[in-house]
Amino acid sequence: MAATQGRRNDGAVEGNFGIDYVLHYKIPAREHADAEAAFVQLMTDLHQVGLDTQVRNGPDSSLFVFIKLASEDVLAQNVYHARVQDWLQGIRSSLPDKDVGATLGDEPITEAERSRLVYLMLSRPPSEGGAGILPRSGRWRYVDSLFPLHNNEFNKAWLKKWSTKYLLDQDDLDEIRDKFGETVAFYFAFVRSYFLLLLFPAGLGLTAWLFLGQFSVAYAMLSCLWCVFFFEFWKKKEVDLAVLWGVRNVSNISHPRPEFEWDREAEDPVTGEPVKVYSHLKRLRVQLLQIPFALICIGLLGGLVIACNSLEVFINEVYSGGGKAILALIPTIIISTATPALSALLMRGAEVLTEMENYPTVDGHRAALIQKQFVLNFITFYMPLLFTAFVYIPFSHVLKPFLEFWSKTAQAVTFSEKPLPTKQLRMDPGRISRQMFGLTVTGQVVNLGMEVVLPWVTRKASAKAKELQTKEDPAARDHPEETDLMQRVRHECGLDIYDVSVDYREMVIQFGYLSMFSVAWPLASVCFIVNNWVELRSDALKIAVGSRRPIPWRCDSIGPWLTALGFLSWLGSITSSAIVFLCSRPPDGELSTASKITLAGFLTSVLFAEHFYFAVQMTVDYVMSKMESPGLQKERRERFHLKRQLLGEGQLQTVRRTAPSSAPRTASVGAATGADASGITRQSLEDEAREQSLKGHGTDEELFWLRQRSTDESITIGRQIIQELVQEETGSPEKAAPEPSPKAE
Amino acid sequence: MAATQGRRNDGAVEGNFGIDYVLHYKIPAREHADAEAAFVQLMTDLHQVGLDTQVRNGPDSSLFVFIKLASEDVLAQNVYHARVQDWLQGIRSSLPDKDVGATLGDEPITEAERSRLVYLMLSRPPSEGGAGILPRSGRWRYVDSLFPLHNNEFNKAWLKKWSTKYLLDQDDLDEIRDKFGETVAFYFAFVRSYFLLLLFPAGLGLTAWLFLGQFSVAYAMLSCLWCVFFFEFWKKKEVDLAVLWGVRNVSNISHPRPEFEWDREAEDPVTGEPVKVYSHLKRLRVQLLQIPFALICIGLLGGLVIACNSLEVFINEVYSGGGKAILALIPTIIISTATPALSALLMRGAEVLTEMENYPTVDGHRAALIQKQFVLNFITFYMPLLFTAFVYIPFSHVLKPFLEFWSKTAQAVTFSEKPLPTKQLRMDPGRISRQMFGLTVTGQVVNLGMEVVLPWVTRKASAKAKELQTKEDPAARDHPEETDLMQRVRHECGLDIYDVSVDYREMVIQFGYLSMFSVAWPLASVCFIVNNWVELRSDALKIAVGSRRPIPWRCDSIGPWLTALGFLSWLGSITSSAIVFLCSRPPDGELSTASKITLAGFLTSVLFAEHFYFAVQMTVDYVMSKMESPGLQKERRERFHLKRQLLGEGQLQTVRRTAPSSAPRTASVGAATGADASGITRQSLEDEAREQSLKGHGTDEELFWLRQRSTDESITIGRQIIQELVQEETGSPEKAAPEPSPKAE
Repeated sequence: MAATQGRRNDGAVEGNFGIDYVLHYKIPAREHADAEAAFVQLMTDLHQVGLDTQVRNGPDSSLFVFIKLASEDVLAQNVYHARVQDWLQGIRSSLPDKDVGATLGDEPITEAERSRLVYLMLSRPPSEGGAGILPRSGRWRYVDSLFPLHNNEFNKAWLKKWSTKYLLDQDDLDEIRDKFGETVAFYFAFVRSYFLLLLFPAGLGLTAWLFLGQFSVAYAMLSCLWCVFFFEFWKKKEVDLAVLWGVRNVSNISHPRPEFEWDREAEDPVTGEPVKVYSHLKRLRVQLLQIPFALICIGLLGGLVIACNSLEVFINEVYSGGGKAILALIPTIIISTATPALSALLMRGAEVLTEMENYPTVDGHRAALIQKQFVLNFITFYMPLLFTAFVYIPFSHVLKPFLEFWSKTAQAVTFSEKPLPTKQLRMDPGRISRQMFGLTVTGQVVNLGMEVVLPWVTRKASAKAKELQTKEDPAARDHPEETDLMQRVRHECGLDIYDVSVDYREMVIQFGYLSMFSVAWPLASVCFIVNNWVELRSDALKIAVGSRRPIPWRCDSIGPWLTALGFLSWLGSITSSAIVFLCSRPPDGELSTASKITLAGFLTSVLFAEHFYFAVQMTVDYVMSKMESPGLQKERRERFHLKRQLLGEGQLQTVRRTAPSSAPRTASVGAATGADASGITRQSLEDEAREQSLKGHGTDEELFWLRQRSTDESITIGRQIIQELVQEETGSPEKAAPEPSPKAE
Repeated sequence: MAATQGRRNDGAVEGNFGIDYVLHYKIPAREHADAEAAFVQLMTDLHQVGLDTQVRNGPDSSLFVFIKLASEDVLAQNVYHARVQDWLQGIRSSLPDKDVGATLGDEPITEAERSRLVYLMLSRPPSEGGAGILPRSGRWRYVDSLFPLHNNEFNKAWLKKWSTKYLLDQDDLDEIRDKFGETVAFYFAFVRSYFLLLLFPAGLGLTAWLFLGQFSVAYAMLSCLWCVFFFEFWKKKEVDLAVLWGVRNVSNISHPRPEFEWDREAEDPVTGEPVKVYSHLKRLRVQLLQIPFALICIGLLGGLVIACNSLEVFINEVYSGGGKAILALIPTIIISTATPALSALLMRGAEVLTEMENYPTVDGHRAALIQKQFVLNFITFYMPLLFTAFVYIPFSHVLKPFLEFWSKTAQAVTFSEKPLPTKQLRMDPGRISRQMFGLTVTGQVVNLGMEVVLPWVTRKASAKAKELQTKEDPAARDHPEETDLMQRVRHECGLDIYDVSVDYREMVIQFGYLSMFSVAWPLASVCFIVNNWVELRSDALKIAVGSRRPIPWRCDSIGPWLTALGFLSWLGSITSSAIVFLCSRPPDGELSTASKITLAGFLTSVLFAEHFYFAVQMTVDYVMSKMESPGLQKERRERFHLKRQLLGEGQLQTVRRTAPSSAPRTASVGAATGADASGITRQSLEDEAREQSLKGHGTDEELFWLRQRSTDESITIGRQIIQELVQEETGSPEKAAPEPSPKAE
């Protein structure tokens, strides 16, 4: 466990008065009676589940209900049950101690584990022994939120440590895992690995930029190789971390989604338990709506991109009149205001669509949502570059109608009689590099501002506004010794909820720029490495200062983002080769015969690149599968110890018996090998068996096994047969060979 | 368990005198003394491991050692240990009963399990409690073979049943599994599934042949779809069967390869056990030899194919003189005699190479060997068709030098003065169909002959020859009641060893014809379905009559063949589309401008087909993953029962507590909700806590949780706060709402 764990081992946070969760209960005007009734019900339920409560005044018309576990006993019970469930799901290799009290002593629980267990007690449906609280819905509509309090001491130490440290190590990740759970820890682990591995493309990019220039085949191939390597490396690392953190297979546990609406209840054919059923066909019908939705997205966002890009091309490369510097800002302004608005609208659409798909599990819902968001992000972020690479550069003539349209529009807007001064459009492959620079560098700076600076400013401003608005000092009603705590609670209650998928998205989109377009501007990875160093710290800041403490869910993978990475890495092999092919040769204005040969060349290079990618992937996958990682070693060690424990050192090997117990075979082997073989004749030995048969004592089978009554006798007979063979061969009885001693090997 | 199991449940075979294994011990001339010493050692070792023995005369200069387990006890011990090991490896979900004796009663063991366990006792190294017997090597060089005896009664019933049954069902497979082990059962399961699923392409092929003709795009796409479906179906089925037969994860157990030669022993970093180490680099160096080896194979076999094919083209399509019918046989004769010889030579090369690669495990060795053999088979079987499809049809002009060479050779051979009568070569797309017909139909008939008829004839002939050679009747020395047994033993000892990979190879090669070339002759699958019906029965015959009883190894997959299937299915998508593209358009003699456009078209169609394949694969994979198969249901059921058993029905849910145990909170909830809320004022309640603090009895934290001493008090305070809010809002004290009763949800 981390050093900052504190003296307790029950996972409670020091300095938070032992509060596990804060429940913010709103009492809207005109619904007092209902709110009061529901409040009584809430308190009763919390009590029944095994939680203690305290009630205090909240800001405006609200209450704070402070929740803690009633006793060590309740904690131990819950820990035991959770661990048994884990064992059944194949997450733990050994059953926890049956003595519930000892459970806590054996494996001290972390803050994250405790927090997660308490949250489960609060949120699990009553049929499974929880309070079933689902904020803002149904009977819990007055429960505004439910959140744990930050561990301020840890947060301060954490931020201080990271701001003075160049590279993070495994301990830092373990600490995050202990405090914020595996979901957050996995994000940091991912960014850390990505950051470290980025050193290679950064070095490569710098070299390429200095010596090879843009559109280099060597850079494209090495970059593709790196993408594959990174993807495979992370797949392995992920498993490793999951084993180290004891969460392997956690993704098999499906948390039921409370909003799920079922058609009917049926009996599970296997377990006989009731299961909620929703028609697959119905869901499929809704899922098919994704196709028109995607088309709408492509149409709207794509249209916007094409419009602004062609306008930009018109202003920058065709228009030759005055005021170019100011005019050039127009498309930038349009795109940077319209895109977020449109994107937000479509994101909302994606959410609605996912709700309608009505998934039974939280994970299913989340994966479906992320998938849709990824498609949207893909269009928003990559479309300008794709447009430049695959429309502007190879087919600049198709831009003509657009350019003419803008020319006429400009004429109309300016009420000018004569056409605007223009020049012939000359395709410029450098455009893609400039765009790449703009999108990545500017994008990252803006993003940092949006992520850290903006929320901070808004918060300060709104706090100020509130202060001015409410005449009463909220601290006036606090008990003096609680003032600090209550102030913190009020502050944290006002913070945003941390959503890790926003951060993942940023990294995955960045990876996409790298894999798909960095061949046009190899320096990108150098920028990324700088950005990610800051990103790691700014994300820590966001979690510790800018957000409520997240509920520490477990996970064993980065989930749907892994698929996105694989997809981008594959697509990268294609786009990179295509960009190299298209941009490194003189542009063709017309689709001439020459450009028809180019089509074959283009297809060949794409085909080659894609299969190069597949080959590299298989090789890397194979090589990596041969290596044993620390996680797998840990798993093997656990299994080995279990084996030892179970079988005992001596019994591990199959028993070697010195005297088989079957009845008549009593003579020891030692005596037999020492005895004179010729003393017992074959006839004399085997006659006994025959006698027994005559007396009616044995079946044929018994008789068969009685012919030689012991190993000694078998040996004797065998040696006799061998002697007979010698005689047959030489024609005369050979002297019996000197007693052979068993050879030592 | 199958009905033919017999009355015993210890897995012993009825009618075999209880013999588990027969060991054939050869005594070569002039090595009597050594053989005798080794024999004594052998017997001692067998005895120590816990096996009983009987010695009898063998044919020529040899002994038979009959081996059986010494007692029920030894069996029970071995079964228990094997099952514990299985549990540790994750193969079994529950630990076997600690009472070793009860183990057999709980789960009766099958013939296959017993036979495997005894074989393990015989073959395991002495350090692991076995006798370490490795026939024909080192100190065991006189041990010629080690085999179990057939269960004649079962075999007869089996062959009779299958010869009168149209379709096999799961019971038939279970029976095979019980008798011959999972390796053989998996083969039959695979062929059965393949046979049943072939009905679709057979119907499709017939329809295509009747209505669409050759080279139909629709047929190609549907066939590709079917290949993917079959591949994914089998992957799922395989897991299913493995679970049903309780062998899932068996492939994780690696049997050490006795022939493995290690550089040094090292300590395992995890378990501290000694491990045998062989330098990876050394192995890699040998593995790299595969590249020149593959080139040699392609050169030799490919050269042969090109030579014979071009000769055939010359005779059939260019030569216009007499004697064509007879001359046409020449290339067929050359290819059908030279190919097997060359192939056998190269196969031997592959074996040597694999030996040199020195794998530490049996599975690793086998996979490497199969991989090499697959490459060889690929060249041998598919090269003629690939040559026709991708050389003869699109580039018939490259054949010119070959044809001229043959023309000149023919002239030289016939001593003719004037050139032979020839005509212009006209490319004929029908050639590929004729070839396909020849290779599949003829190939299968020949194969059946080689597999069933030829061994039978050879066996009869050699038995006759032996009879004539040896003057002495071998039965003369048998004990009268053993004559039948001994005759059977002598017969079975003379049989071949069954190698399942030969049978797999045949099926996989067939699948390759289907996926890659059937677009040229859609009737192929109809032939295959007929062939496979016979094949299933002839393979049964081969195992039951033509081979020694196989050692019943376990497996959980068809192993390396699965990779081969996936590869062929992928390649099929490419070759099919290419063949369709090349053969369904008029042939081009020269590489004209027109054919340059064709290159782009060709690449486009290949690219399209390949990505169609990927898309189909992902879809099928996704859909299949949504379905729950019987095997997975079984697994879930087992887990559910285990869960029930462990937690008990009542305890399954997290405990609901009615009275939390924390000290001062004693009042019951019922009383609180009933009490008049206005009776206790907030001040009066919370003052006590303050008092306690003044007395120095509590920290801030204790004080915090003591302000409200019970849930009742919390409720009371909460309701008071709500009332205060009402007052603030309305400006006047509102009548307390009537006591709200907790709402029932």
